[in-house]
Amino acid sequence: MLRSIATVSVSGTLVEKLAAIRAAGFDGVEIFENDLLYFDGSPADIRKRCADLGLQIMLFQPFRDFEGVSNERLAQNLNRAQRKFELMHELGTDLVLVCSNVSANVIADDALIVDQLGQLALLAEREGVRVGFEALAWGKHVNSYRHAWRLVDAVDHPSLGLILDSFHTLSIGDPIDPIADIPGDRIAFVQIADAPLQKMDVLEWSRHYRCFPGQGDFDVAGFADRVLATGYRGPFSLEIFNDGFRAAPTAATAADGYRSLLYLEEQAAQRRVAPAAQQPLFTPPAPPSHSGFQFIEFAVDSTSAPRLAQRFAEAGFHAAGRHRSKDVTLYQQGVASIVLNAETDSFASGFFHTHGLSLCASAFQVDDAARVFERATSFGYAPFSGRVGPNERVVPSVRAPDGSLHYFVDARPDEPTLYEADFVLNPPAPDTALSKAEQGRLDRIDHVCLNLPADALDTWILYFKAVFGFEAEPAWLLPDPYGLVRSRAVRSADGSVRIVLNASQDAHTSVAESLNTYRGSGLSHVAFVTDDIFAAVEQLRARDVRLLKIPPNYYDDLEARYDFLDGMVTKMRNAHVLYDRDAQGGEFFHVYTEQMDGRFFLEVVQRTGGYDGYGAVNAPVRLAAQAQRKNGSTT
Amino acid sequence: MLRSIATVSVSGTLVEKLAAIRAAGFDGVEIFENDLLYFDGSPADIRKRCADLGLQIMLFQPFRDFEGVSNERLAQNLNRAQRKFELMHELGTDLVLVCSNVSANVIADDALIVDQLGQLALLAEREGVRVGFEALAWGKHVNSYRHAWRLVDAVDHPSLGLILDSFHTLSIGDPIDPIADIPGDRIAFVQIADAPLQKMDVLEWSRHYRCFPGQGDFDVAGFADRVLATGYRGPFSLEIFNDGFRAAPTAATAADGYRSLLYLEEQAAQRRVAPAAQQPLFTPPAPPSHSGFQFIEFAVDSTSAPRLAQRFAEAGFHAAGRHRSKDVTLYQQGVASIVLNAETDSFASGFFHTHGLSLCASAFQVDDAARVFERATSFGYAPFSGRVGPNERVVPSVRAPDGSLHYFVDARPDEPTLYEADFVLNPPAPDTALSKAEQGRLDRIDHVCLNLPADALDTWILYFKAVFGFEAEPAWLLPDPYGLVRSRAVRSADGSVRIVLNASQDAHTSVAESLNTYRGSGLSHVAFVTDDIFAAVEQLRARDVRLLKIPPNYYDDLEARYDFLDGMVTKMRNAHVLYDRDAQGGEFFHVYTEQMDGRFFLEVVQRTGGYDGYGAVNAPVRLAAQAQRKNGSTT
Repeated sequence: MLRSIATVSVSGTLVEKLAAIRAAGFDGVEIFENDLLYFDGSPADIRKRCADLGLQIMLFQPFRDFEGVSNERLAQNLNRAQRKFELMHELGTDLVLVCSNVSANVIADDALIVDQLGQLALLAEREGVRVGFEALAWGKHVNSYRHAWRLVDAVDHPSLGLILDSFHTLSIGDPIDPIADIPGDRIAFVQIADAPLQKMDVLEWSRHYRCFPGQGDFDVAGFADRVLATGYRGPFSLEIFNDGFRAAPTAATAADGYRSLLYLEEQAAQRRVAPAAQQPLFTPPAPPSHSGFQFIEFAVDSTSAPRLAQRFAEAGFHAAGRHRSKDVTLYQQGVASIVLNAETDSFASGFFHTHGLSLCASAFQVDDAARVFERATSFGYAPFSGRVGPNERVVPSVRAPDGSLHYFVDARPDEPTLYEADFVLNPPAPDTALSKAEQGRLDRIDHVCLNLPADALDTWILYFKAVFGFEAEPAWLLPDPYGLVRSRAVRSADGSVRIVLNASQDAHTSVAESLNTYRGSGLSHVAFVTDDIFAAVEQLRARDVRLLKIPPNYYDDLEARYDFLDGMVTKMRNAHVLYDRDAQGGEFFHVYTEQMDGRFFLEVVQRTGGYDGYGAVNAPVRLAAQAQRKNGSTT
Repeated sequence: MLRSIATVSVSGTLVEKLAAIRAAGFDGVEIFENDLLYFDGSPADIRKRCADLGLQIMLFQPFRDFEGVSNERLAQNLNRAQRKFELMHELGTDLVLVCSNVSANVIADDALIVDQLGQLALLAEREGVRVGFEALAWGKHVNSYRHAWRLVDAVDHPSLGLILDSFHTLSIGDPIDPIADIPGDRIAFVQIADAPLQKMDVLEWSRHYRCFPGQGDFDVAGFADRVLATGYRGPFSLEIFNDGFRAAPTAATAADGYRSLLYLEEQAAQRRVAPAAQQPLFTPPAPPSHSGFQFIEFAVDSTSAPRLAQRFAEAGFHAAGRHRSKDVTLYQQGVASIVLNAETDSFASGFFHTHGLSLCASAFQVDDAARVFERATSFGYAPFSGRVGPNERVVPSVRAPDGSLHYFVDARPDEPTLYEADFVLNPPAPDTALSKAEQGRLDRIDHVCLNLPADALDTWILYFKAVFGFEAEPAWLLPDPYGLVRSRAVRSADGSVRIVLNASQDAHTSVAESLNTYRGSGLSHVAFVTDDIFAAVEQLRARDVRLLKIPPNYYDDLEARYDFLDGMVTKMRNAHVLYDRDAQGGEFFHVYTEQMDGRFFLEVVQRTGGYDGYGAVNAPVRLAAQAQRKNGSTT
């Protein structure tokens, strides 16, 4: 299937946009009129540039406020159309998007509109071009594709087709099933956009909040499926107005756009409610099933290595082994594994990266590592090959959006484990002989939380959905004392892998990043599961781990909000344990360590009764407590 | 009159907030419940901290979803209220804000609600506290102050009063005149917020877009006037939920908040539609009347001085004099004056400051310089005193929000002019003997345009309104190839002084700034008036000034949009002149020079037929042309 994107969807000058769009893999572009007006050359220059790049100009847009007008105005509009048709010849495209009239004094007379669109179709025919008519969600008289289709159908001229746009349909809750009844050859073009659900004016929503399919809340796959059911053979074309994208790195945005169309094709193919599409769709290897984190890996140097090692030792981890061929150490507790990598070529040159302590790698347990690797690279994510020593396992890996490595590890019953193959393992630590009460209370990684640069959230959401098959949870807006943080969690269907992505909303709480790449996310914290939060706290304290002090008023308020067993709130208050309860009565207990060097910290969590969140409601008190801790205690 | 602010209005920890609020001059605070919950100490600690600072705790807020509930729920709610009343004793405040119920299943029965509010009032009386009832604009049953007042009036208990909030009233277009009929002693508290007009859900609007009075579009002064007409003797208290403020420097935001209340008092006093208020209001010296820019002053060093001097010479300026006691040079053309200051203590240490070429000072012609100075300092803006040589004029000046200096100069018919007093003026330049056609075509400064750090726009708007008595024009959102720019112009009533303020919307197009200050705006460009744009272009070209090339397609589109005399569009195209026309037929012709070192540039403008804007519609093509120029010509 042909893949296209409107030039308005990415940042930069037109020259930069076209180069990035081609590099991302697109077959064609919609030339947005302003990009043409602002271009330092003629329409023919754009045509040549696109031809040289191998990009087809699929569409010129928009042509506004044509229909439902007085006769005098119609003459002017046909004149205006004539000019634009001539421009299209120069530009080398034969299709123009006419969007429904938004003017307050449009004449709401369908017969008149059919006549006027018919005149436009005749003019287009004479000029050898085609017109596509699209209903804007805020069109004054025509605001639904069904209405637009009735008009186009009535005109019944081969030079006039219908243009569909997922945003205009899904934003107003228009039913999508009737799309499948439109003859595919009458659909001139299909524009694709997703968006987060917002309570706002639909025009403002459309102009500032659109995003790539998979990044928002719309059923774009269902929409695409109904379009494919019509037999439509044209392109899917992204048309994204997004304030963040306007300021984001051009190449990264274009690459994400292309991936989002691949992802959409896969999703749409799975929805198939209608006869098989006549178009070949992208069919990557299936997403993995997950069994949790294998390990997370920190880049360390001679200063940071002992400090991090001590921090994990205090938290109950034991040194489990050393890598056979690299300066890499393994720490374990329960099934949680931490790797400290002191190799000089590891991802982060320093200990604290721009956005905090950096994870140089994360490893994920999957059913078939080779298949996930194939899937990731088929979406255009970069493969990685590192040095592999004799008899060490070759672990498929790709680069995450920040340049760190994601390893995929599958279970191989007949082979040595990854750790056995790659590490010289220490003899069982003495404390394994200890009683349960004396052993480490942490079992496995519950989730990791990453601090992302502003505007990088959508890139990561798409990555985890496309490569990992993760689900994305609704976003939270969290008040930090120094600005708002947008937070969104992704997770495997079984909940065994969970990653929380936090991005600052503004320049103050984030760190300035380069225009070229999103490189450099930081690890905020790692959360470990325990089955007894109070025993875990006791043990951490016995090892002199400093816990983040939670303000006493928090507990007074907790007591006012919920019923607790006698003494429970006191117990939580004394242990600095935070609390959340879901609508089904599931409970979440969690406690934080103090930050290391003012940034990275550990969390210990206990989930009961099927609680499935992350205590986001407690993030503001945690952020405030951390800020107060940095400023020195106040009382 | 007492001045107060809710702790939610500024960034930081509670300790930082209280210190900044006190330093700004406020008499008291509203303690927002979350700030209390997150505070690392007891309510009594907050009480003591406020007492030590000399801040009165005016109000505790909010208490939600009390009224219109079942009997069982009422008992719970009274219990909850009891707890909060006890907390208020600890906190040392006797007033709590109860906001109208937003729950979907509120019982819409006014008699029931009067009964329930009555029970709350009795409980409050027993506890020695007072309750203020406020209608939220999105309250489920009660969403207007008029409804809330009917309920409070019916309860008729001294422990229950009405709380007014300008946002909740003005956002839903509630009439303000009836406020004046409420007995002032029944109004328990008054919250103040402004907001820009937005087409969006009122809850989202309230939570993210409120701003200080004078920064938005509401008639807050009219609201305040009606409140004062009631005889209300309590405080005006700012309650601002603003995403930008959450991330802005705490002290700067608090200082602006205090100034905004002073400004509001002045504005409200001028509105006086009702009997004189019983409260003393802030009455600063009157704002100035303006007669244009006196000069603008650049900080230069030995490298930049000759380059800037050459640039202005090319534009037709002549060296008019040297300062008597400082390394300062004056350039003039028509009545436009440019000062290059090479003193080492001038504002900018380097040529290009963080945000571009910096203006170290601007001087404004006013009717009474001493009065403007008094006005500025009465609003808390910092006075400045520089070195003054023998017989040089002492020019009153204050620091603008970026730390640069603003001088006020008045006409003194019986004294030497400022330039005669301070400068050794050159003999008239030879070209003054030249014919009009050979003389410089630029007459005076039309406007200057500043690039501001993100989030600094509101600070500058308030400054220019309060000190200069300027009007602020509606904001524009301008697409730059690398992100959106928010642009807002301020101007004197007569249009003789105009300043355009541009602020990037995001981290990419702005430059990271310190949390402590907004120091460091940059000069984007200076626009000069001409009475013949084409003659001015010819003259600039004769002096080898390079003009910014405007893309040819811009002119094709212009031709399609407007009627022009034959040859006019060709003339504009050849001269790279941009064009705008207002609804009354007023025209704007403007041309830009290329950027100097990729940043600062000059503009020449011609206004006809009363055109009063800045050609903002052309800013995107200018921004794109500049970006393309930087990336190298594309054709």
